[in-house]
Amino acid sequence: MRLRDLGEFPFIEEIRKAVSAAPGTVIGIGDDAAAIECGREGILALLTTDMLVEGTHFDRDRDAARGIGWKAVGCGLSDIAAMGGLPRAALIALGAPPETAVAFCRELYRGADDLARRFDCPIVGGDTVRSGAGLVIAVTVCGEVERDRVARRSAARPGETVWVTGRLGGSLAGRHLAFMPRVREARFLVERFGVRAMMDLSDGLGGDLHRMAAESRAGFRIDAGSVPVDRAATGEADDETAVRHALYDGEDFELLFTLPAGGDPAALEREFAARFDCPVTRIGEVVGRTSGITLVREGREAPLAEGGFPHFE
Amino acid sequence: MRLRDLGEFPFIEEIRKAVSAAPGTVIGIGDDAAAIECGREGILALLTTDMLVEGTHFDRDRDAARGIGWKAVGCGLSDIAAMGGLPRAALIALGAPPETAVAFCRELYRGADDLARRFDCPIVGGDTVRSGAGLVIAVTVCGEVERDRVARRSAARPGETVWVTGRLGGSLAGRHLAFMPRVREARFLVERFGVRAMMDLSDGLGGDLHRMAAESRAGFRIDAGSVPVDRAATGEADDETAVRHALYDGEDFELLFTLPAGGDPAALEREFAARFDCPVTRIGEVVGRTSGITLVREGREAPLAEGGFPHFE
Repeated sequence: MRLRDLGEFPFIEEIRKAVSAAPGTVIGIGDDAAAIECGREGILALLTTDMLVEGTHFDRDRDAARGIGWKAVGCGLSDIAAMGGLPRAALIALGAPPETAVAFCRELYRGADDLARRFDCPIVGGDTVRSGAGLVIAVTVCGEVERDRVARRSAARPGETVWVTGRLGGSLAGRHLAFMPRVREARFLVERFGVRAMMDLSDGLGGDLHRMAAESRAGFRIDAGSVPVDRAATGEADDETAVRHALYDGEDFELLFTLPAGGDPAALEREFAARFDCPVTRIGEVVGRTSGITLVREGREAPLAEGGFPHFE
Repeated sequence: MRLRDLGEFPFIEEIRKAVSAAPGTVIGIGDDAAAIECGREGILALLTTDMLVEGTHFDRDRDAARGIGWKAVGCGLSDIAAMGGLPRAALIALGAPPETAVAFCRELYRGADDLARRFDCPIVGGDTVRSGAGLVIAVTVCGEVERDRVARRSAARPGETVWVTGRLGGSLAGRHLAFMPRVREARFLVERFGVRAMMDLSDGLGGDLHRMAAESRAGFRIDAGSVPVDRAATGEADDETAVRHALYDGEDFELLFTLPAGGDPAALEREFAARFDCPVTRIGEVVGRTSGITLVREGREAPLAEGGFPHFE
């Protein structure tokens, strides 16, 4: 069997099976970042790595070098945010063809550094290698989080409300290279509102809802009309097309989370608006122990097809 | 200017200039791993990432999947060893074309896990992405080391003796996929013999001596006849050809280190031999404050040309 026939998530299951479990690993393969014991009472180390490949995640001719560097670091920061943590250090491994312009690489590192600096996450090391076939960047971000505040994909429970930050869709209009990882917003959510079920939106809300539902073994009921769409990026589409963009474009790098039962939605909206430029929107609720997604649209319900960006198809 | 015209080490200098310095970074870009403050008194976190690209570092048709996985993790473990540290966790990012066989990937992860397990360094996470152009693997290894035991490239001082572990050369005969990172040997050296100047041999002794000399601002005098050559791997070559293999083949993943003045060379040899299968060999001495390498061969001296594996040429 080929990867294209297996798909990404069954492949990650294969990897889970191929590697050994370890006692100090609190959260292993499958969440936005790994969380491990680090020898400090009450603190977990967070580790995440993201690979960006030319032609898949960026286009060297179209996308400016700074944007590529920014995006590479941003993916990692967004993963740390999704765990409720704070980033501490980043590493960048770059594979580049020998004919790559030095100036291009310099701008790429400057773009990466520009974003990393804003979150006190210095680039402390990495690797540079010759690549025979296109530019490849792998960024690792290390962070930390209090053990009793770590957020994970598997923690959504019936009765909780479902929320997203920002506006979704239209990432290819350019935002996928210029997004702001929601590190501060995520810290606020775990500190102030006890959020413990969270992930970042990288494959598109449509696919990522399925991920969180499956990991949490819960069903989600989503109100299509409430999904916040980035109208500037998706253009003058009709409502249905706009929601489709929000569900399936991917690379939003916003947060998907649930507010624990007993949390005050009005307070969340009010306090969030007072602190951050980015909106926060309630889009639905966790409804049961079956891990399907129901989309409600103009009073009618339909199961939401899994249709996130297919990695190996 | 293109990367091929600049070369790897001036490029790393460019990167150093492009990124911001950070106060908590004890050792940053340019050593085998970064060392940063981690909130534990007297302990530094070690972070290293290595990228392996098909066609540059391995050949999918020739090199078995298990060997590729082993090598990817081994590079990171070897970097942690070179800092005198202990590995704690690894991440693997894999970029693979959609037509890659799932069984091949599974074996790759098993090979990685096989080596990682031997050093209590679980694979806790990673990334899987589609690559349009060949297999790419980026492995990050996190470790730790006591602040007063961290070894670095820049610590060699005149009067110290220069040593290597193992036998060098001939890595392409297969050892570059089956090497054993010298984690235990390195810990023994820093704990028992106070070794603080160390690096791993990845580009070949010829190039790596220049790296350590430049970082330490010291000159090395190396006895060509004492350089341990892997005769089984380099074949029935004459002495000069054998030494050339040892200097320039690269990917030995052995340790290059100095024994501090006052250290007992005979005790080092005796105790090392009692504990480890791998040999340890004195090959020269640190001679002054000018960062050149002098090779002594049959009573004659000559400057050693820089000729490690050129990454961008």
